[in-house]
Amino acid sequence: MSTYDQSAVTESAVTVIGLGPMGRALAGAFVAAGVRTTVWNRTPGRDRDLVAAGAISAGTAAEAVAASPLTVVCVVNYDASDAILRQDEATAALKGRTVVNLTADIPDRSRSTAEWADAHGISYLDGAIMTPTPSIGTPDAVFILSGPKDLYDRHHPTLAVLGGSHTHLGEDIGRAAAYDVALLDIFWTAMAGYAHALAVARAEGVTGRELAPFAGGIAAILPALFTEFATDLDEATYSGELNPITSAVSTMSHVVHASESHGIDASLMRLIEGYARRVVAQGHGTDGFVRVADLLTDRPE
Amino acid sequence: MSTYDQSAVTESAVTVIGLGPMGRALAGAFVAAGVRTTVWNRTPGRDRDLVAAGAISAGTAAEAVAASPLTVVCVVNYDASDAILRQDEATAALKGRTVVNLTADIPDRSRSTAEWADAHGISYLDGAIMTPTPSIGTPDAVFILSGPKDLYDRHHPTLAVLGGSHTHLGEDIGRAAAYDVALLDIFWTAMAGYAHALAVARAEGVTGRELAPFAGGIAAILPALFTEFATDLDEATYSGELNPITSAVSTMSHVVHASESHGIDASLMRLIEGYARRVVAQGHGTDGFVRVADLLTDRPE
Repeated sequence: MSTYDQSAVTESAVTVIGLGPMGRALAGAFVAAGVRTTVWNRTPGRDRDLVAAGAISAGTAAEAVAASPLTVVCVVNYDASDAILRQDEATAALKGRTVVNLTADIPDRSRSTAEWADAHGISYLDGAIMTPTPSIGTPDAVFILSGPKDLYDRHHPTLAVLGGSHTHLGEDIGRAAAYDVALLDIFWTAMAGYAHALAVARAEGVTGRELAPFAGGIAAILPALFTEFATDLDEATYSGELNPITSAVSTMSHVVHASESHGIDASLMRLIEGYARRVVAQGHGTDGFVRVADLLTDRPE
Repeated sequence: MSTYDQSAVTESAVTVIGLGPMGRALAGAFVAAGVRTTVWNRTPGRDRDLVAAGAISAGTAAEAVAASPLTVVCVVNYDASDAILRQDEATAALKGRTVVNLTADIPDRSRSTAEWADAHGISYLDGAIMTPTPSIGTPDAVFILSGPKDLYDRHHPTLAVLGGSHTHLGEDIGRAAAYDVALLDIFWTAMAGYAHALAVARAEGVTGRELAPFAGGIAAILPALFTEFATDLDEATYSGELNPITSAVSTMSHVVHASESHGIDASLMRLIEGYARRVVAQGHGTDGFVRVADLLTDRPE
């Protein structure tokens, strides 16, 4: 984390490629901070509000990247980003410049992009945004980046105007994507559990508004458990003293039975209960639930 | 929520049935608050520390419930609780007394127990504890209860010594179990996502301790999203403006591919991605992810 250095930013310029909701939020934050901002999107017409606010609209991706020493990319995935950047004109225009790719994808795509960038004299950092669109430009935003540290340090003053915390996770270019994938895993699984819980509650006559404050209470107890489970897995201690997986199994079956008694699909919890029961069958019933991480990993015992 | 009224409690007495980790915590909190506490557990020997602290050990379940106007039950499920309470001697001893059953199970079991209690002149409240064992006796504990309001009011002064917040959810006896099942659904699904994320992170060379603070950051953004999704579902608005389900699908597939490239089971995320893709196929791709709640519910469109 660091504070925003206005003197460094007034001289800076940035190009933003990709104007979906997140790309527009990024470009808007740069414009609002007085950074000379050039924008481009494959589908035209997404830049009207940004141009009205002071952004410069580029005619092609190559023109866009040529306009700034730093290009920030935020598109749907690396297939989309490759389709834009790995074209002769855009690639040539990027020579000697820096790409910070905030597009989400798997770590192998970042590694392959690093090879491409290196072969074409392009500097490259990979990154991910871990908070929703409205967080951009506010202290709540969370950015993670990986790649050469000197490159991160050089562009940090410009990126810092996006607000929030910025963490350099290491020189391994795939590291931001690895964190991103793991955190999206947590996020979407939790949201799926919540959507399912809302369906079960509704079938029992409990509204979403009634359940939500208690659901928030569950979210509030997660960080401490996340820390405890992380240590358990790192040290292979798997302490289940206060909540052994044998007890967990019983509460999981309640969720399955209550759901199915209302005709609600309980496949997710059936799968989770199955993992837990297999851990018990392996003789680890007194361990904590985090033992499931080993079960999911295909490796010799 | 309410504060603990010492004057009401000094005259009170309670019996605790079930001395697993949670039952011992409950009994310990009663003893610590100076409540006359009688304890019983099917498997003997679990009450030594409690007796040393001042609890009274009963020889049978019937003796235990006869010792107090209020019996708090906390066992593994209602099969276990029925095996203890629905025996002639214990049932007879409970006549004119109150059972608060904090055992987790599905709402139908609470409803069946209410019928049994009514037929035998026993007063009955169902409840659930939404926080881990160490929260008992502290302000962090969360208790939810349902059943007759006058009964809740009468026993609240005694139960309040268990600490934290106590919420009466309504007269419908199944309501606490309905909330409990929905909240356990959220909890275990989130924990399963986290265990999986730890496995994926480990395969990418990221330790649990490195991931945990960022995982905590994901937990921190959940309550606001839970509230938003609850309103969306209650009002069938499904706003996906900032995060349409079409975008979500792409990030879910990253999790699947990154996991499977390391030989890690990704069945959970495959299932979640499948739900999301089916919502898109139904023509609701611009909706938010909470649309999945409708997909899971077997009801006419």
